[in-house]
Amino acid sequence: MTDKSVVTENNEEQLLAAIDLGSNSFHIVVAQLDQGELRTVDVLSDKVQLAAGIDKNRYLTDEAKQRGLDCLSRFAQRVKDLPRDAVRVVGTNALREAKNSKAFIEEAESILGTPLEIIAGREEARLIYLGVAHTLADDQGARLVIDIGGGSTEFIIGERFEPRIMESLHMGCVSYTKRFFSDDCISAKNFYRAKTAALQELQAITNYYKENGWHSAVGSSGTIKAVRNACVSCGFSKDRITREALQQLTEKVLSFKHYEEIDIEGLKPERKKVLPAGLAVLCAAFEALEIEEMTFSEGALREGVLYDMAGRLRHEDVRDRTINAIMQRYHVDQEQADRVEQTALLAWAQVKEGWQLSRKHYDMLSWAARTHEIGLTIAHSQFHKHSAYLLSHSDLPGFTTREQQLLAALVRGHRRKFPKDEFKALPKRLQESYRHLCVLLRLAVVLHRSRSKDRLPAVTFHVDGKKLMIEFPEGWLEHHPLTHADLEQEADYLTSADTKLRFR
Amino acid sequence: MTDKSVVTENNEEQLLAAIDLGSNSFHIVVAQLDQGELRTVDVLSDKVQLAAGIDKNRYLTDEAKQRGLDCLSRFAQRVKDLPRDAVRVVGTNALREAKNSKAFIEEAESILGTPLEIIAGREEARLIYLGVAHTLADDQGARLVIDIGGGSTEFIIGERFEPRIMESLHMGCVSYTKRFFSDDCISAKNFYRAKTAALQELQAITNYYKENGWHSAVGSSGTIKAVRNACVSCGFSKDRITREALQQLTEKVLSFKHYEEIDIEGLKPERKKVLPAGLAVLCAAFEALEIEEMTFSEGALREGVLYDMAGRLRHEDVRDRTINAIMQRYHVDQEQADRVEQTALLAWAQVKEGWQLSRKHYDMLSWAARTHEIGLTIAHSQFHKHSAYLLSHSDLPGFTTREQQLLAALVRGHRRKFPKDEFKALPKRLQESYRHLCVLLRLAVVLHRSRSKDRLPAVTFHVDGKKLMIEFPEGWLEHHPLTHADLEQEADYLTSADTKLRFR
Repeated sequence: MTDKSVVTENNEEQLLAAIDLGSNSFHIVVAQLDQGELRTVDVLSDKVQLAAGIDKNRYLTDEAKQRGLDCLSRFAQRVKDLPRDAVRVVGTNALREAKNSKAFIEEAESILGTPLEIIAGREEARLIYLGVAHTLADDQGARLVIDIGGGSTEFIIGERFEPRIMESLHMGCVSYTKRFFSDDCISAKNFYRAKTAALQELQAITNYYKENGWHSAVGSSGTIKAVRNACVSCGFSKDRITREALQQLTEKVLSFKHYEEIDIEGLKPERKKVLPAGLAVLCAAFEALEIEEMTFSEGALREGVLYDMAGRLRHEDVRDRTINAIMQRYHVDQEQADRVEQTALLAWAQVKEGWQLSRKHYDMLSWAARTHEIGLTIAHSQFHKHSAYLLSHSDLPGFTTREQQLLAALVRGHRRKFPKDEFKALPKRLQESYRHLCVLLRLAVVLHRSRSKDRLPAVTFHVDGKKLMIEFPEGWLEHHPLTHADLEQEADYLTSADTKLRFR
Repeated sequence: MTDKSVVTENNEEQLLAAIDLGSNSFHIVVAQLDQGELRTVDVLSDKVQLAAGIDKNRYLTDEAKQRGLDCLSRFAQRVKDLPRDAVRVVGTNALREAKNSKAFIEEAESILGTPLEIIAGREEARLIYLGVAHTLADDQGARLVIDIGGGSTEFIIGERFEPRIMESLHMGCVSYTKRFFSDDCISAKNFYRAKTAALQELQAITNYYKENGWHSAVGSSGTIKAVRNACVSCGFSKDRITREALQQLTEKVLSFKHYEEIDIEGLKPERKKVLPAGLAVLCAAFEALEIEEMTFSEGALREGVLYDMAGRLRHEDVRDRTINAIMQRYHVDQEQADRVEQTALLAWAQVKEGWQLSRKHYDMLSWAARTHEIGLTIAHSQFHKHSAYLLSHSDLPGFTTREQQLLAALVRGHRRKFPKDEFKALPKRLQESYRHLCVLLRLAVVLHRSRSKDRLPAVTFHVDGKKLMIEFPEGWLEHHPLTHADLEQEADYLTSADTKLRFR
């Protein structure tokens, strides 16, 4: 193990930190893990407005980038003493969208000393639900959770701690402010256009969500918090957002001509600019989904990230469930997957020192072995490419987009010519180790190509730099001429993986 | 209808022709369709050896191309008086593989006056089975059918007229002759290497096929016919290929040093060169699949193509079954698909004269409407791209690769920005009509975006060149502001499709 793992540390008073690089604000939350429960120790937010700093060609401007990095430098001080595995940093819609996010991500990673994980919309939705669910009592039946962010809005139906339906739509308080209120004027026309656009987006999910139904609606994050507080402070409602209160608040906001004029008790100055657009999105959601009232929960994405980390520490990794689900969905030959996985992991155990592979690599190799044949559901021809397509484009709860990319690369390379260009497209620091993992997967596949139920004999793997030696019990290879021929072919393929395969 | 359709003609003595551009030989068969039965009227073959004319960079040489076109000029005379829909021309592995096949295909199409359809390996397998099944008695339980071609070998398990399992492996008598017998020498070593390579390929399917099992093994096409005849003429067996006869024949063939020396009664001179490689593939199949004996059937790909055409004339189009199967496999929302299909086809009916759309376009539009949402099985985000991926890469029985490409283009373009470059990648003569079809599909999707069960009112479509006008009953649009907004957005998108959308 090269990683400093938190699992091995004293677990009684474990500190965990989550950093959320949202399109509107950046947040950090530090919490103490105490007997499986999280107690917040520290929170910090900064209205970076990354989405506002994306130009019309979808490039992040230098100013926005600098605002973000300055904020992260401050956050970095809070996490510098935590072990590397105790910190998770996630980026959402603005970083998903910006074409030049790669440079930003690299600088952010070097400031924080930990990877920045971009998560897909549905994964964001799952984590939000997790964060919200932990703040609520456990007795309410199905819930609808809505989170209006800066660039995307998440809709989740779930029960207890289980999100069942997750969607992320392309609309948010920052992006809609840019699109419909660029003149800074609050007019009924601008508001109507924004709300109509949100209703158009919502059409895709409305029927499906209504058919599934829910018992109570809960909102999270800044926009909904501001609306709830405004409804209360204006006396439109007591403690929640009702349909009537929302209507009254909308009329009140539309009575101002310019966002700077908005005068509502308790509304933070920096919220004013994005309030009309956020309100339009919320009104559209109430209308389309026929919501009567909505409570507010302090739980949000960052809390969800913390609970997800805590789950992994307890070996309840949602990624394992995801892999099992995808194997079922695509009718994987479970026995063959088991055989390949077992041999690949045996190889990992024997070469991990020589090739400096960690437990994280063990997980990735295992998941790749279990899913390498999912592409057969599409067609036999070129199925390794189909498997990779499915892994990179499916919603895989628990996985970051980079993890999906890495899994897809392993699976893409598991047969035929070694696709060295695919590995060159990975982040530099990961290229060598994932090339090595792919070699192990390939060899496991070769050794089980006959799909025979017969157990393999004890095969030993030994590495020395670029050389990889496989040893079989004496006489075994002579009795298995097809495996011998396959390995000869494989030795030829692996020169492209910069690996010198020998066997005897 | 712009096509001259055979369906409308006198069906009693209908002539049909199938041309098969194989990797080893080109064949034409003309048959009479009489009360649903086919009687062969004329057959012609030419050992063009297209695969032998593919160089190591996978380019078809000018000589091979010319051999092929010369042959097609002769075939063209046989089909020049038949209606266009009564002729089908299919290309297999050599044309799948050659990088410059596009130019060849265009010239071939202009010589024959009919489209040349490249079919995928499994579709080839399905058609071979169809051809073979019609030559056999109906009482034998499951059969294994093997067809060793010039560039690929097909393995099919089926019962009666139903192929159940189909595979096409990359090995054939021409490609293996080039790869393992390039010195023209028949040596045990060359033979062993060819057989081992075939065994390696077979590993992928052996277990699965053996688990499914079969009652009798049947071979088709030139290689297996030559082997069967040789076994009989040498006295090694009576009327079929037994395992022992195959062994004896192999020993006999290996006793010659050079292919020109092969001296077996009844063996055609042009078969000699590719016999050792074909024999190696057959020996590998016998060994891997533990076949005891194999009969020969005169049915082959071209007969399968004829029976497939005859089925379509009787409105038993296997493509409909395929589309239904794929809708089930990917859990399509059937009701939404029905709604979109119905509206798209209503639009087709109203614009077909103005935009010169045929019944073939009707079919394609219907299939695209039924499958446009299959990509949701992968992820909601960008699902139109996933749908297109699945349609272009799945094995779709009955569809040619071009039809799959056209379907994928329609589905790829059904939402968001109009992908005009995708349509520019289609064959020139198809671009305009498929762009128009895509516009119809998009509008049907827009009109059903709410997924509502409510019936649409009578909407009329009218085209005039690039202008497309949609008329709603008076007042309807005012009461459906979201549809109005969607159509405004769509009008904007459709400028890229070179279509001026108006509505009222």
